[in-house]
Parts: sequence; C-alpha cells; structure tokens
Amino acid sequence: MSSKLTFRNVLKPENVITELHWSDIRFPTSLEAHGSDAMHKDPDYSAAYVTIHAGGLSLVGHGLTFTVGRGNEIVCAAIKSLEPLVVGRSLVDIFTDFALFWHSLTCETQLRWIGPEKGAIHLAVAAVINALWDLWGKIECKPVWELLSDMSPEEIISLIDWQYLSDAITKDEALAILHKQYPSRRERIESVKQTGYPAYTTSAGWLGYSNEKIQALCREALDDGFKMFKVKIGQDVSDDIRRLKVIRKEIGPDTPLMSDANQRWDVDVAISHMTALSEFNLRWIEEPTSPDDILGHAKIGRALRPLGIGIATGEHCHNRVMFKQFLESGAMDYCQIDSCRLGGINEIISVLLLAAKFGIPVCPHAGGVGLCEFVQHLSIFDYVCVSGTMEGRVIEYVDHLHEHFLDPVVIKDGCYMVPSLPGYSGEMKEESRAAYLYPTGSVWKTLLDSQ
Amino acid sequence: MSSKLTFRNVLKPENVITELHWSDIRFPTSLEAHGSDAMHKDPDYSAAYVTIHAGGLSLVGHGLTFTVGRGNEIVCAAIKSLEPLVVGRSLVDIFTDFALFWHSLTCETQLRWIGPEKGAIHLAVAAVINALWDLWGKIECKPVWELLSDMSPEEIISLIDWQYLSDAITKDEALAILHKQYPSRRERIESVKQTGYPAYTTSAGWLGYSNEKIQALCREALDDGFKMFKVKIGQDVSDDIRRLKVIRKEIGPDTPLMSDANQRWDVDVAISHMTALSEFNLRWIEEPTSPDDILGHAKIGRALRPLGIGIATGEHCHNRVMFKQFLESGAMDYCQIDSCRLGGINEIISVLLLAAKFGIPVCPHAGGVGLCEFVQHLSIFDYVCVSGTMEGRVIEYVDHLHEHFLDPVVIKDGCYMVPSLPGYSGEMKEESRAAYLYPTGSVWKTLLDSQ
Repeated sequence: MSSKLTFRNVLKPENVITELHWSDIRFPTSLEAHGSDAMHKDPDYSAAYVTIHAGGLSLVGHGLTFTVGRGNEIVCAAIKSLEPLVVGRSLVDIFTDFALFWHSLTCETQLRWIGPEKGAIHLAVAAVINALWDLWGKIECKPVWELLSDMSPEEIISLIDWQYLSDAITKDEALAILHKQYPSRRERIESVKQTGYPAYTTSAGWLGYSNEKIQALCREALDDGFKMFKVKIGQDVSDDIRRLKVIRKEIGPDTPLMSDANQRWDVDVAISHMTALSEFNLRWIEEPTSPDDILGHAKIGRALRPLGIGIATGEHCHNRVMFKQFLESGAMDYCQIDSCRLGGINEIISVLLLAAKFGIPVCPHAGGVGLCEFVQHLSIFDYVCVSGTMEGRVIEYVDHLHEHFLDPVVIKDGCYMVPSLPGYSGEMKEESRAAYLYPTGSVWKTLLDSQ
Repeated sequence: MSSKLTFRNVLKPENVITELHWSDIRFPTSLEAHGSDAMHKDPDYSAAYVTIHAGGLSLVGHGLTFTVGRGNEIVCAAIKSLEPLVVGRSLVDIFTDFALFWHSLTCETQLRWIGPEKGAIHLAVAAVINALWDLWGKIECKPVWELLSDMSPEEIISLIDWQYLSDAITKDEALAILHKQYPSRRERIESVKQTGYPAYTTSAGWLGYSNEKIQALCREALDDGFKMFKVKIGQDVSDDIRRLKVIRKEIGPDTPLMSDANQRWDVDVAISHMTALSEFNLRWIEEPTSPDDILGHAKIGRALRPLGIGIATGEHCHNRVMFKQFLESGAMDYCQIDSCRLGGINEIISVLLLAAKFGIPVCPHAGGVGLCEFVQHLSIFDYVCVSGTMEGRVIEYVDHLHEHFLDPVVIKDGCYMVPSLPGYSGEMKEESRAAYLYPTGSVWKTLLDSQ
C-alpha cells in the first residue's frame, strides 16, 4: 500500500535528474477577450512550462505554472535559476524526503531574498514541483490523486514543510484529521469515480457580455448539466445588476450563484457594492479587495455574512502562512487554492489540512491553462483523504484550451470525471508547445508578423 | 516653494525617457561571511542596477534594488520586462501624476499576475522608481529628502497610489498629519542638519563571532560614538546568551540593544526563545517569524511586551497593504521600511503616513548595498514632514561597501549626516559597476577563473 515502498522497487539511486527544461508558452487569448475581468483586461493565458528528465528513465515529468502573458519570461528566468538545485539530484532522495527538497528550493539562502515564498520565484517552484509530481505519478503508473490517496497519513504529512505552521496546526492534529478519513477512503474513491466532482462555470459571467449572450450561455451551461454559476462583477454596480438579473432569470432564484470582483475594491467599497447586490442571493464574493488583506477580508466578511454572502479568496494567496491567517481569523469562508501560485502539491496539502482543521471548504481556482487539469487531482485527494466530504465544495471550470493537453479534463453533467492516466494531467501536446512557443512558435510568428 | 512648479520650468515635454539600462552587480561578500544571519548564511550583497536617460537632458537617474546574490538575475529580467512601460514616457507626465505612473507599473494588466505588488516584479519596480527619484532630485538640484520636504502636503499625497488604503487612512487624515508638521518644518531641517539622524550598528552582533571579536567590535563602535546596538540571534539559545552577556558587559545594562532573528522561528518558539533572553533588556526582536505572519507577530507581541520586548519587522514586508495590517493590528512596534522591497518612495510615503497615524516609529532597514544611502533621505523626510520627531527612531547602519558610491553616507558620532548632493545618493562609481558586473566584471572573472 505504501507508495514509497513501491517507488523504491522501481527507482534506483542512479535515476538522477539530468535535465530541467523550461519554455515560455503563450496563447493569444486576449484577441478574443476571453477571461477578462475587472483587473486583468487582456490576459494571454500562458504557461512557464517545465520538463524533467532523469538518467535511466524514459518517463518525463511535465509541469507548468500559469500566468496571463507578460511576466511569463520572468518566471522562466526564475526556473532557470532553480536549475542548479534540481539537476544532479536523485529522484529517490527527493521522493524519500520531499519536504526537505521542497525547503531546499524555497529557502535557498540567496534566492529566498526575492520572495520569500512569493512572486516569480515561488511560481517557478510550483512549475518544478508540479513536474516532479507528474513524474512520480508516471513512475508509479498512477494518476497523482491516486498516488496521494494510497499514502499513509504518516507519509502524507512527511511531504510538508512544517515551518511556520505549528501555532495553527500541529503534526499530531494533521495526523488525526488524516487518520479519521483513512479507514473509509476506498468507499469515497468508488463514490467519486461514479459521480465525479462538482464543477461551476463562469462561461456566462464575464464582464461586457450582452443580455442575449448571457441568456444563450446560461441555457447552454444548464443543458450541459451545470448546477452552479459564477459572475464577474465590480466595474459598475448598475451593469452588475443588469447582468445578475438576466442570469437569475435564466438559472432561477436558488441555483448557487457566486460573484468575483478580482481585487477591484477598497474594503468599504466592497461592503457597499455587495450590499447593493444582496437581493441576488450570491453565495460568495471572491477577491473583493487586495489578496494580501487578511484583516480587510475579515471586515468585509463580518459585514456581508448577515446578508448571506460569504468570502472566497485564495487564487492570489501566495503561501501557507497567508492561508493560515485567512483561515484562523475567519477572513475566508471558501478556500480557493491555486495549483501554481502555491509551491506545488507539498504546500497545497498543508493548506488542505489547515482548511479541514478550521472547517472551511476548499473550492480550487481553475480556468487559465492547465489549472483545471491539476486541481481535479487536489479536490479528489481532499475528498478521499482530508475533508471526507463534497458538501459546499466545488471546482471552478472554464472551457478553454483543454484541447492542448494529452489527458484533458472530462466534464459530464457539470462534474469533473476522475482522471485515470498516470501523472498530473498537465502534459501539453508537443505540437501545441511548438506552435505557441513565445515569440518564435508558428502561431506567434504569424501574429507578430501581421502586426 | 512648489517643486512641481520648479520642474515645469526646467523640464519640457520633449524630455522623454530614451533608455532604461539594467545591470547585475554583485559583491562577493560571502567570501568574508559578512552579513550572515540565521536564514541567509552566505549573502553576496547585490544590486539590480538601473540607469535612466532622457532626451535633451545630460542628467542620468541612477537607482537600484538590493538582493543577496542569486536571484539578482531574475530581478534584472523583471526590470527588462518593465522597459516598455518606461521608455517613451515624458518626465513631465511622470512627475505631474507620479501616482498614476506608479500604478501603471504595479498594476499592468498582465505583469501584475506574477505579484501582485510582491516578489521580483515589485523589487524591479523599486529599482526603476528609485532611479526616477534620483533623476528628479538631480533636475531640481536637490537631495531627495529636500525635494520632498519642499513639497506641499497636497503635492505629497498626490504621489501615492491610494488603492486599498482607505479603510486604514483617508487622504484627509494624511493631509492633517502633513499639515500639522508643515509650519515647523524649517526648524526641523535646521536641527537635523546640526545633529544628524541617529544610527545603530550591527557590527558586533553577527552570528558566530568569538567573545574577543565581539569585545573589540563593541569598543570600536562605542569609540565611534554609537549609542545603540543590534545583535543577530536565533540559531542557538545558549550561544545567544553567550554573545549577549559579552555585549551587555561592554555597552552597559541600559544602552539600547536590539535583537534580530531573521525569520527563524515558529510563533511559539519565538515566544519561548525570547523569554529565555528577557534578562538582557532587549528593545525589540526583529523578524521573529515569517515576514508574512501578521497574526503571528501580533501574538508574539502580546507575549513579549510585558517583558519589555517590542516587535520590529518590515524589511521583507512587501507592500503597503501588508504594512497597513501590521500597523492597524498592533503586530509591529517598530516599522522597518525597506527602500527597495517596497515599490520605491511613492509607496514608502504611504507607509510613513500609516505609521504616523498609528503612532508607530519608523526605523528603516539598511545595510546591504545602497540601502543606507537611500534610507537616510526617507528618515529625514519622515522627521521633517511626517512624524515631526526622532523619539524612539533610529536608522540601521552597516559599514559595508559605501566606498563604491559617489555620495556615500557620512556617519559622525553615531549619526547619519544630512546628505547635500542632488539626487538619491544611490549612484555607484562607474569603475565599481564595471568591476563587479556579474559574471563578466574583472572581480568576478578573477574569482570564477580561480575556482
């Protein structure tokens, strides 16, 4: 049952990492105004893409971190700076004490200055760690959610860098959470394989859509089986009301509907803007203000909870220390981990455990490119091993760019189907990586030549 | 009196920025183990160095952001990514609405994803903004502290991006703080020109020093007129006690002595470690835990204040939203702004105003390379225009690398003397920039060849 015992049989000390490649891959999504919100008006969904090769292994680890275009080159520069810490390391050593290896990246004595554990360097760590988990899954011949679900509670907590966590959660508390779910995990695996994991869609909710477009997209989403919806708000209260009226008319008064302001407001403006929208029965307001503002989110939460509106945030929450504070101070009702903002699965597990301790549901951020592919593994693991429930939990879903992946997400009747191929599902097709390489891939050459 | 009126006479719309240069400059300080602390054992003090040229102007703006070696190349990559936002801009436009220009760098719709306002991209913003202030000072023929001190309260608050601040401080509150000090500012200018601004030294306090070395360095510092001292602690409580005993014996029981753990501890460990050192009459413990942990610092503060120990932090505090929370929640007794971690003077002014509102003294982080040169301007401006007092305030001082600057700090009798040359004092000698350019400068060539 122990995955570590398994890999020890497959891997040998001579399986040493020989190559860490990175590439700057961008999709010109801004041309179609997909994904525009109150703060990111022209995103080109992008990936700082990593492959990891090891001696004596034909399997290759694929990972990425997500950005929205410009700046992707800076994250690639940061991946390059991590290379000496990765190449030459034995996979057995890494997977035997993954927390120590993670710490060696995030706490490198010189590099940590430009974080620590935040910004470009932490996004780069995520890409590397995501690729290592993909490789580990492929070595074990398991999707990553299963690799994790097959671990014992003790193995799971050994993946985490516990620095700065002990005032909020101890290893013993974490073990108790995991042991509580351990005996019944097989039942949940069977159950989620049957039903999938519920998703919500933002397809009808982007800023600037006409009433007719919103209507058509709501109907399409309902036909596709979606039972939860999200709408982008925050530029103009009267336009928000216009779009919310159309959506509510289409989906009915009680279908879960969430809202997202993408960091648009000051604290008191968030409270007044959302109060003006209280008739629309919104489950949460996401990123109402600066993603760093723990106390601000707590204040907004105290004002809006009596109106039935919860606080969701996390996609820009940069490390476990920030999540710790959001969770312990009641500043977050829905915990939106990001698979690339945090430093990969190792750090994410610590946040899942913190959320379980404080009784806050985890509803991952997705969309972008590759995020849906990653987070399905995390939510399934959370359900099977940590929270033990799907109640109040839902994964974001956006129907963009999945065609570029070898093992794209499968959505049926508004739910993510459980992935079954080995790895972390983030491997992009070789032809896509070539065509969208920035700025020399064929798509960009054509675009830049025509400008 | 209005500097804006002045520059409008000097600058013309055709003074447009034509070049933004960056270079990766590193000093091999790790060879001498200068500056080692509990988390940064081998710093190579480094600068991502910026020069800004404008058409029709012979003056050049020089700025930098500080790092500790590896990772400096990532910040340089981030500066490169900012270039299109800077080159082509008119200096008149920038200085007329500096807050808007600042926002255009920190909130660029794609680049902001890899922050926002944190990590490599924000350090890069600092280098650019520092260079622009240097250029503005040179154009006005004033040191930057004087350029600022000659501005009206209204001009000063127009420098700030107010997004996310209004729940803690309004523009009217900020104006009231500035107007209170405005009539008496000339007296304080004369006074600080006479006395200088008090400094403390860490020279005797680094980890790993022998009793004899500590003794000698304490005596030297006392001879030089220093009246406040800081010691690095946190690796081992018994070694901390050994060194504190030697220092206290040398400087006496009542001379202000501060301590710095450089993020070493978990929250509860910080409390127990510092409780064990309570006999040494330590004014503050600096960075006891993760620099992101507002609630953790608040808890440590509640435990240690009854022992007479305050909480100092800020050198890794990445933006005004974090400072806002530290200040309003009582998590910080001493506010240690960093001239390069925050996005330059514009953002720093907002933190000075927040600190004044919440009654917390600002004691800037310095040392490294160039930091002492910058922060003297900030503390003098704080004294003249914002806080109106030096009580409980002191600037860090480390005697490293000043010889590389054209206008190095001058310390007399333990105080920073007021700088008088135009600009921000961060211009490095051309020969130093050439010799320490990484990895092709003569110093690095020799070093790398010999390894």
